[in-house]
Amino acid sequence: MPMVQINVWKGFEQEKVDYLIKNITKVFTEVDVPAEAVEILIYEVPKSHWGVGGESCSIKFKDIGPKE
Amino acid sequence: MPMVQINVWKGFEQEKVDYLIKNITKVFTEVDVPAEAVEILIYEVPKSHWGVGGESCSIKFKDIGPKE
Amino acid sequence: MPMVQINVWKGFEQEKVDYLIKNITKVFTEVDVPAEAVEILIYEVPKSHWGVGGESCSIKFKDIGPKE
Amino acid sequence: MPMVQINVWKGFEQEKVDYLIKNITKVFTEVDVPAEAVEILIYEVPKSHWGVGGESCSIKFKDIGPKE
Amino acid sequence: MPMVQINVWKGFEQEKVDYLIKNITKVFTEVDVPAEAVEILIYEVPKSHWGVGGESCSIKFKDIGPKE
Amino acid sequence: MPMVQINVWKGFEQEKVDYLIKNITKVFTEVDVPAEAVEILIYEVPKSHWGVGGESCSIKFKDIGPKE
Repeated sequence: MPMVQINVWKGFEQEKVDYLIKNITKVFTEVDVPAEAVEILIYEVPKSHWGVGGESCSIKFKDIGPKE
Repeated sequence: MPMVQINVWKGFEQEKVDYLIKNITKVFTEVDVPAEAVEILIYEVPKSHWGVGGESCSIKFKDIGPKE
Repeated sequence: MPMVQINVWKGFEQEKVDYLIKNITKVFTEVDVPAEAVEILIYEVPKSHWGVGGESCSIKFKDIGPKE
Repeated sequence: MPMVQINVWKGFEQEKVDYLIKNITKVFTEVDVPAEAVEILIYEVPKSHWGVGGESCSIKFKDIGPKE
Repeated sequence: MPMVQINVWKGFEQEKVDYLIKNITKVFTEVDVPAEAVEILIYEVPKSHWGVGGESCSIKFKDIGPKE
Repeated sequence: MPMVQINVWKGFEQEKVDYLIKNITKVFTEVDVPAEAVEILIYEVPKSHWGVGGESCSIKFKDIGPKE
């Protein structure tokens, strides 16, 4: 405990993945959760498979984030 | 709010993905949820990694849906 | 297949839950997925446990949706 | 994007929930993700329903964290 | 690794929960995964919030499993 | 019901996937759940995207499990 699942757009850089793992774990330690207990899974979801407001992000946010 | 996660067999066509995003969002608006608040994530899972009744779908449903 | 998981704010009315189950299943049938194959799970998450922009929805959206 | 789902033991204090929402969102802003785009859902799972090493946490970790 | 999330109908007996935790962990050890690495989370979802074939299980399966 | 979601490291062999599907389903039948009702989805997550104790598994467990 805890178990964290993070969904990001496909193409999210590895160094950002590493940064999230390190610093989100740190946030948990600040509320007295031991670092070793923190498990974080990160899923990359293509913008074409992520809908907001009825439209896929590959259309709605084509100029933001990773290109598909 | 709401946040929707949909698992489908790998190979699900993009036009069907777009149809789901558009029309599932519409269903939410019919219960007074604003379209912009609806977030939909779609995960493609290989039939080989989807078990029903103790068997993977790539065996149990080999003649249905996308080929693997 | 498919398997759908929907997260909504705690207090979402049952008749809306029933409406979602019925009509989201219908959307799937419109892309040639048999109704019987569609499984939908709906989770109610308290607004106090749902964060947007760094703030819980029980603060950020205290005047919208179910009261807590 | 991103969408974060966090599972913690039932009984996790609300002030810790608020702390996580605020500071995990901050971590995302540090990798150039706008705060408003960050959605965090927190699920409380009873220790009796959380297994590690073949045993429920209400037995394995009965002296740690919230009592059940 | 691995991390297992199990959804069952609300009212699933605790002794069955314990049985699942113990014996699903055992299955993993049979494919060379150390028991201590296996984390299992079990969520109880009301039959009223679980749809199959366009209908909630509290209607479709009212005579099966826990009463609501 | 039930619906099971399993996260494993990317590179988990298919014969182990098949073993899990078959034998986890069997465990459910031992608590009176019909095999046909058991749905199991298995997600492969790269070790680079799986954090434990603030570090990705591709670093922390580089000598264990599948190579990346």
